[in-house]
Amino acid sequence: MEQKLAFASDYMKGAHPRIIQRFTETNMDATPGYGTDEITEAARNRIRKACRLETACVEFLMGGTQTNAVMIDAFLRPYQGVIAADSGHISLHEAGAIEAGGHKVLTLPHEQGKITAETLQAYLEIFYLDENHTHMVMPGLVYISQPTEYGTLYSLSELTAVREVCDSFNIPLYVDGARLAYALATEGNDVTLPALAGLCDAFYIGGTKCGALFGEAVVIPDPDRFPHLFTLIKQHGALLAKGRMLGLQFDELFTNDLYTEIGRHAVKAADRIRTAMAEKGYWLCIDSPTNQIFPVLENGRLKEFGERVAYSFWEKAGDTHTVIRLATDWGTTEEEVDALIALL
Amino acid sequence: MEQKLAFASDYMKGAHPRIIQRFTETNMDATPGYGTDEITEAARNRIRKACRLETACVEFLMGGTQTNAVMIDAFLRPYQGVIAADSGHISLHEAGAIEAGGHKVLTLPHEQGKITAETLQAYLEIFYLDENHTHMVMPGLVYISQPTEYGTLYSLSELTAVREVCDSFNIPLYVDGARLAYALATEGNDVTLPALAGLCDAFYIGGTKCGALFGEAVVIPDPDRFPHLFTLIKQHGALLAKGRMLGLQFDELFTNDLYTEIGRHAVKAADRIRTAMAEKGYWLCIDSPTNQIFPVLENGRLKEFGERVAYSFWEKAGDTHTVIRLATDWGTTEEEVDALIALL
Amino acid sequence: MEQKLAFASDYMKGAHPRIIQRFTETNMDATPGYGTDEITEAARNRIRKACRLETACVEFLMGGTQTNAVMIDAFLRPYQGVIAADSGHISLHEAGAIEAGGHKVLTLPHEQGKITAETLQAYLEIFYLDENHTHMVMPGLVYISQPTEYGTLYSLSELTAVREVCDSFNIPLYVDGARLAYALATEGNDVTLPALAGLCDAFYIGGTKCGALFGEAVVIPDPDRFPHLFTLIKQHGALLAKGRMLGLQFDELFTNDLYTEIGRHAVKAADRIRTAMAEKGYWLCIDSPTNQIFPVLENGRLKEFGERVAYSFWEKAGDTHTVIRLATDWGTTEEEVDALIALL
Amino acid sequence: MEQKLAFASDYMKGAHPRIIQRFTETNMDATPGYGTDEITEAARNRIRKACRLETACVEFLMGGTQTNAVMIDAFLRPYQGVIAADSGHISLHEAGAIEAGGHKVLTLPHEQGKITAETLQAYLEIFYLDENHTHMVMPGLVYISQPTEYGTLYSLSELTAVREVCDSFNIPLYVDGARLAYALATEGNDVTLPALAGLCDAFYIGGTKCGALFGEAVVIPDPDRFPHLFTLIKQHGALLAKGRMLGLQFDELFTNDLYTEIGRHAVKAADRIRTAMAEKGYWLCIDSPTNQIFPVLENGRLKEFGERVAYSFWEKAGDTHTVIRLATDWGTTEEEVDALIALL
Repeated sequence: MEQKLAFASDYMKGAHPRIIQRFTETNMDATPGYGTDEITEAARNRIRKACRLETACVEFLMGGTQTNAVMIDAFLRPYQGVIAADSGHISLHEAGAIEAGGHKVLTLPHEQGKITAETLQAYLEIFYLDENHTHMVMPGLVYISQPTEYGTLYSLSELTAVREVCDSFNIPLYVDGARLAYALATEGNDVTLPALAGLCDAFYIGGTKCGALFGEAVVIPDPDRFPHLFTLIKQHGALLAKGRMLGLQFDELFTNDLYTEIGRHAVKAADRIRTAMAEKGYWLCIDSPTNQIFPVLENGRLKEFGERVAYSFWEKAGDTHTVIRLATDWGTTEEEVDALIALL
Repeated sequence: MEQKLAFASDYMKGAHPRIIQRFTETNMDATPGYGTDEITEAARNRIRKACRLETACVEFLMGGTQTNAVMIDAFLRPYQGVIAADSGHISLHEAGAIEAGGHKVLTLPHEQGKITAETLQAYLEIFYLDENHTHMVMPGLVYISQPTEYGTLYSLSELTAVREVCDSFNIPLYVDGARLAYALATEGNDVTLPALAGLCDAFYIGGTKCGALFGEAVVIPDPDRFPHLFTLIKQHGALLAKGRMLGLQFDELFTNDLYTEIGRHAVKAADRIRTAMAEKGYWLCIDSPTNQIFPVLENGRLKEFGERVAYSFWEKAGDTHTVIRLATDWGTTEEEVDALIALL
Repeated sequence: MEQKLAFASDYMKGAHPRIIQRFTETNMDATPGYGTDEITEAARNRIRKACRLETACVEFLMGGTQTNAVMIDAFLRPYQGVIAADSGHISLHEAGAIEAGGHKVLTLPHEQGKITAETLQAYLEIFYLDENHTHMVMPGLVYISQPTEYGTLYSLSELTAVREVCDSFNIPLYVDGARLAYALATEGNDVTLPALAGLCDAFYIGGTKCGALFGEAVVIPDPDRFPHLFTLIKQHGALLAKGRMLGLQFDELFTNDLYTEIGRHAVKAADRIRTAMAEKGYWLCIDSPTNQIFPVLENGRLKEFGERVAYSFWEKAGDTHTVIRLATDWGTTEEEVDALIALL
Repeated sequence: MEQKLAFASDYMKGAHPRIIQRFTETNMDATPGYGTDEITEAARNRIRKACRLETACVEFLMGGTQTNAVMIDAFLRPYQGVIAADSGHISLHEAGAIEAGGHKVLTLPHEQGKITAETLQAYLEIFYLDENHTHMVMPGLVYISQPTEYGTLYSLSELTAVREVCDSFNIPLYVDGARLAYALATEGNDVTLPALAGLCDAFYIGGTKCGALFGEAVVIPDPDRFPHLFTLIKQHGALLAKGRMLGLQFDELFTNDLYTEIGRHAVKAADRIRTAMAEKGYWLCIDSPTNQIFPVLENGRLKEFGERVAYSFWEKAGDTHTVIRLATDWGTTEEEVDALIALL
């Protein structure tokens, strides 16, 4: 159906074949609904183990916007808002889902998709110095993405510094890991799952963009942090009746390290493309080491390119050039990468 | 895993095998996301054809609560509420999803899960006679379920009468068809898909409880009724990135009449159980002709029964008996029905 | 302007003359805004003293619906709803203000405007017995009105019984005292301000309907119960810039017992009317001992009556009669009562 | 009580004496509630006349945040947000009231408190060029303040240019006139009430900060623009029971041009202060011609100044200086201005 080379996003193909196989094998099993089944419980345990958290609460939701809306709702009181980079997914591309839940997104300027501990500290200091701050939305949560929407990564020291600012203002930290597999698989990344689990009040392990058909796994280290979260999930329309369909996907993803394998496969493919682009003199305007690549193309060249390659528009770079985004994933083949490189 | 006979709900097993097969076959296809792909468009066309609506808007969402929340949000202005039976899904079992969107559910007493045109008419007359009605939530939508949560059906004349009341008060009508396949397949049902399409301002064709892995198809006869519905769906966290996974399921369900076939299969199985129960003197406390059965069991007997059969608790019937719910679906086998009947 | 006898409501005239005088006297004073001034603090202290609560949080808001919306928002988490009589103000006559804040009103059938401890207990028991209760709105607060919307009163033993049920389910209790002055002034009432303060997690002392120009005083015995309530009030658009206008009214109302005096004046007037009506054979369909009277009039008679008296429509009593409401207040004069009685 | 010179805000004193007198005179009148009385209708007519709008809808609310929340709720559909300057009242100082209603505030950088037509045009063009804009909050309203929060004014040509951009994108325009009296009274202002009425879809005439005890008058030129606005107001807790208290204040303000007189009085006082400050070499960091003055003071000097004058902190100007705000109003006396000037 789609003849172009598939680099527009990391959700163009189905799911990793082991997941599809698992759907097939378990199809006639009859289990209770809403994630109360044994497969889902097994998946929870695999994730707890991977995070080295024996007792964490693990819940499976269907997509990223939904997960962010539910969790931010769980964290905040009505008078509180969530701090995020102005480039953050919740700031821009969730159609106001956070505001629909009654909460303001308090944006900070980003640096390559990240917020720095310094920026955060300065914002909070100025906020509390302002004599009118009780007339303003109280910062109640810090939201960051790992990797960011620009494909960049927080290092362990950067993330620790953000956490320390959070601690000094008594604000929890929540990490959106929609593409976490690619962070974990990037060479030089030092934020492992257990490290992340140790630094966050909650985070989610992305499935949809990392090889699942759909699904995100929320991890909450303190299992008593959010009483009645199940009901909140239901209220958000986020409770899957055939809940085991989420559990089995994560059970598979966390068996034999498939999640990291998927990450590595995609990052390796992206690395090949980056290397080829560098050799051929393309300018990559964001220094992204994960599965996303942001080359700048001259508009005439882009038109031609677009006839052969499915890509995403990122933003205009003046009147003559355009920044695009290419993404790899579990399903990116050697042949696709070869063909893309040949086109450059 | 689950050794008991699977009659607890119509979402205990996976999906109809043709759907699973379709997932497998199309897995490596690369398509654009968010339901903008050709498979999803094909599914839209199949549904339009089945409803005899050439230009209807058809959108695919993930679950029933989510669909109701999105659509009711689309219909209502902030000062309006939705009229529903007090037994309606939105009234009771959606954890306040409608109220979370800012809207009151205005409940009417049900008769076997239905609201009658007379009750509706009386409610609206009294509302507008009340001198204080501008201090009250304005009724802005009528919500009914077909089949109802009690497994009962509106006849065409009943539905037409409700519609006429709606028209006389200029209030739109929305139908929750979470289990619509079973209505369509029930002998004597005269509310066909085109009839439904002709009487409603919007309705949804349930997938999750009718053989899909997940998914509901919203049908809006007037395609201009809800501008920017896509953005509203996104805002509700209801937009699936790999959107074609919804499209392909409905494409399959509406190929060679699979949707009705699934309905017939389940209703036939339920009919066999109903007949056997009647013969053995069981009291069915609701006269449900669809895929749900509501027998009353003595509590001691129920305990024994529950060791062999997965069922749902419905409600207490005094101190000594209990109403339970049994449900059949696409995956209910002859053997399961035989075994259940043997147990009675 | 209004020539009819003024019995339509307890908010037809301005404010008690002492309040108007106080506005005049203090008009040129310059104070900080938003209730941070000394007059407002003095009013807080007078109310604390009247409630025998040394450290209570006391906040002044502008009207009843606003106060209920703010406080219920403060009490509840998103997945929780508020239990109320189906005749309660929040259930019927606040245009969905509670739902607009995201919360369901969980209604119980009323008895003369009240909910009984038994009804409440039964509701909560059934709720928690229901296997699906995690799919339902969790009861998170009990709301009652004293006096009720029917002008009736909870006795101390009734209120204590409600409190005990609340305690056994760990649910807080909130009392809407829009007309509290009339409860406090009714002979036989044993729910004093300190008693109320001892039984509630929060309540409000109504000003608007009890002699103020506008304003309600929220009392929260535990001052640490709602951190950041000020910001929540601001968010609800409920923070008065010239905040001392609220403070000075309550300072006046709680000086020399004016609040009770206003209550007594109105109840005495209502008692005279009730006695006269009883003597002349009128049927009072609600046994209300406070400032509201609910006679049933034959429709022809009512038309004539309405030409001389401003009253409120309450509800139809069959096809030939109507229940109306008459209300007295601080401004009801002997002459008005005499004239009304003469008309009967 | 407050001995310092009262320049902290324009809501430190009570109300213009004519308003207080009117409260006194009408106090014993009995009228129907909720703004349905004749005084309120008279006020509506005076405002219609002042705006040269014969049929406009005029509603009276209690405060600015409340008014903005109600009106923005009335304008927007759930998927829409409101464009505002990042310095706008709704962006910063309403504690998230707009987000609590479910809507995102889409901020544009301000220039002296204003948004320019060019900035607005550029924002909207880029928005609609973005291929992902259907995943983003749709701009559904433009909000500006006249005067702005910085005390600056839109000229008629600037406002007309903003309107033209609105028109070309089919977006309505709403003006927050919390301090409108001061705009109308400023020399050189060419945005008269009828001009404003001709350019906006709605605006409000501020009372609270312009001499009323409280209250804002919303003007909607097209009376059919917002059906059921009364119910929406009620839902927001914004409906005053003794509604005539709002009506009588605006009736007074628009009798014999009191509203402009109040504006002129305050601007003249501010002009005297500005002139004196200029003469004495103070730097006014915002070129505000209305009733607000923004001098920069050295911190040591400010401490001393603050012992004699009630002022508002505005923002830090580096480590050694501070921007403060001084405001005049109807109640600012010659003596206060003289004393302030003497202090400089």
